[in-house]
Amino acid sequence: MEHIKEFFETRDKFAKYVGIEIVEIDKGKATVKLDIDERHLNGVNIVHGAVLFSIADYAFAIASNSYGDVAVSINANISFIKAVSSGTIYAEAKEQSRNPKLATYLINVTNEKGELLATFHGMVYIKKQKLEDIK
Amino acid sequence: MEHIKEFFETRDKFAKYVGIEIVEIDKGKATVKLDIDERHLNGVNIVHGAVLFSIADYAFAIASNSYGDVAVSINANISFIKAVSSGTIYAEAKEQSRNPKLATYLINVTNEKGELLATFHGMVYIKKQKLEDIK
Amino acid sequence: MEHIKEFFETRDKFAKYVGIEIVEIDKGKATVKLDIDERHLNGVNIVHGAVLFSIADYAFAIASNSYGDVAVSINANISFIKAVSSGTIYAEAKEQSRNPKLATYLINVTNEKGELLATFHGMVYIKKQKLEDIK
Amino acid sequence: MEHIKEFFETRDKFAKYVGIEIVEIDKGKATVKLDIDERHLNGVNIVHGAVLFSIADYAFAIASNSYGDVAVSINANISFIKAVSSGTIYAEAKEQSRNPKLATYLINVTNEKGELLATFHGMVYIKKQKLEDIK
Repeated sequence: MEHIKEFFETRDKFAKYVGIEIVEIDKGKATVKLDIDERHLNGVNIVHGAVLFSIADYAFAIASNSYGDVAVSINANISFIKAVSSGTIYAEAKEQSRNPKLATYLINVTNEKGELLATFHGMVYIKKQKLEDIK
Repeated sequence: MEHIKEFFETRDKFAKYVGIEIVEIDKGKATVKLDIDERHLNGVNIVHGAVLFSIADYAFAIASNSYGDVAVSINANISFIKAVSSGTIYAEAKEQSRNPKLATYLINVTNEKGELLATFHGMVYIKKQKLEDIK
Repeated sequence: MEHIKEFFETRDKFAKYVGIEIVEIDKGKATVKLDIDERHLNGVNIVHGAVLFSIADYAFAIASNSYGDVAVSINANISFIKAVSSGTIYAEAKEQSRNPKLATYLINVTNEKGELLATFHGMVYIKKQKLEDIK
Repeated sequence: MEHIKEFFETRDKFAKYVGIEIVEIDKGKATVKLDIDERHLNGVNIVHGAVLFSIADYAFAIASNSYGDVAVSINANISFIKAVSSGTIYAEAKEQSRNPKLATYLINVTNEKGELLATFHGMVYIKKQKLEDIK
């Protein structure tokens, strides 16, 4: 899994810009984390919905690409459950289904106390291309 | 609408960090835009799904809060349709329904050629609090 | 479009069982309707969410299969907006995007007064098979 | 839980019309099942997407109303994973979150072999009304 980790850490510019770090990767699974600071807040001083989406989406992208085939997101659904303003948040992606063309993932976003902040359900389309062939 | 615009421009830190600008606001409507640069790309050099979500979510937040009552996002569904790597992208939010507690919005994300990149459908819960009472 | 209409009217057994009728079909578009009776109600005497889904899904299936290629639903998102207990309900599907593999549709469910009851957003995967080759 | 079971069995007319039966109910949880027959099929002779939605939605409704407060569905997202044509299908609803106004549920639809056919994620709005006060 080291080359998948390196691929995302060196190439995913938006995840780096937001500050999200990879904690763990396995086939069909990924956990990432984000230390909340001021830039992640919205107009009412809570963590922005788009930040919760971004962390979930990063875990989703890593888990769905973990086999080495390029998987592109085609649909995502997020429910926002609990608001926080600080601390560290985690997103953990688990595979629900995978066939040669389509796969689905469930991602839970939690805080450092293990409280559920958001749930994310995403679907990818799997291309014939390999991650290692991307320049 | 000038106070709503000012509220979001001065207070939404994540939208500012991503670089999204407000184009137009009206009751139940909003258009925002983003000039794509390198930080908005993902591992395969296309605009990150989380960036498309962020711009749609910003238009959604402004449109749903445009009446002055605090509206918090509870659910969002996004479909990714076309990938781009550069240019300017726009998100336009339109209200589909609104009752005293819940409202729904449809947001189209397009590029400068008017091509549809993503569609976003979001639901908010409307609080008793007013935007102007937030410190 | 006559063969598409005939295909669905004679073969879609669940749509017939629920009582849904086709009003109009065109490439990428379809309108269907349902006269509400007692069997369509839920425990609190309003039209069942699954009935609103069923009518939207039928318009979605017809619109997405209207080109003659078999299209199978892979994801659907529905928001419930207004409850009704009687009358006639309509679902109108419009295509938002279509490429050789994936297409998305937006379906509005309304009553005979034109009030919006639900919005449905669906995605299909387009197979190489033709509708006319199905036995 | 016996009164919740009786409420749904005697009053939910559409679930009865489709043929869905309650297997088990607990606080925030429900399992239901459906023996597939011809009326549940679509135009290509597989179980209709609206049937998979209906069974998931019924488990969702029971689980979300299991505390005795009226809960109405406001949003649902379903992903279709595997097609079947016969046998018995099950839907099992589990609560993910619940506050005084909003709650979310995850529902898995499986067949008698335990294969995942669809995943459903739903959100309800909780009313002040009690189920026992509905006439």
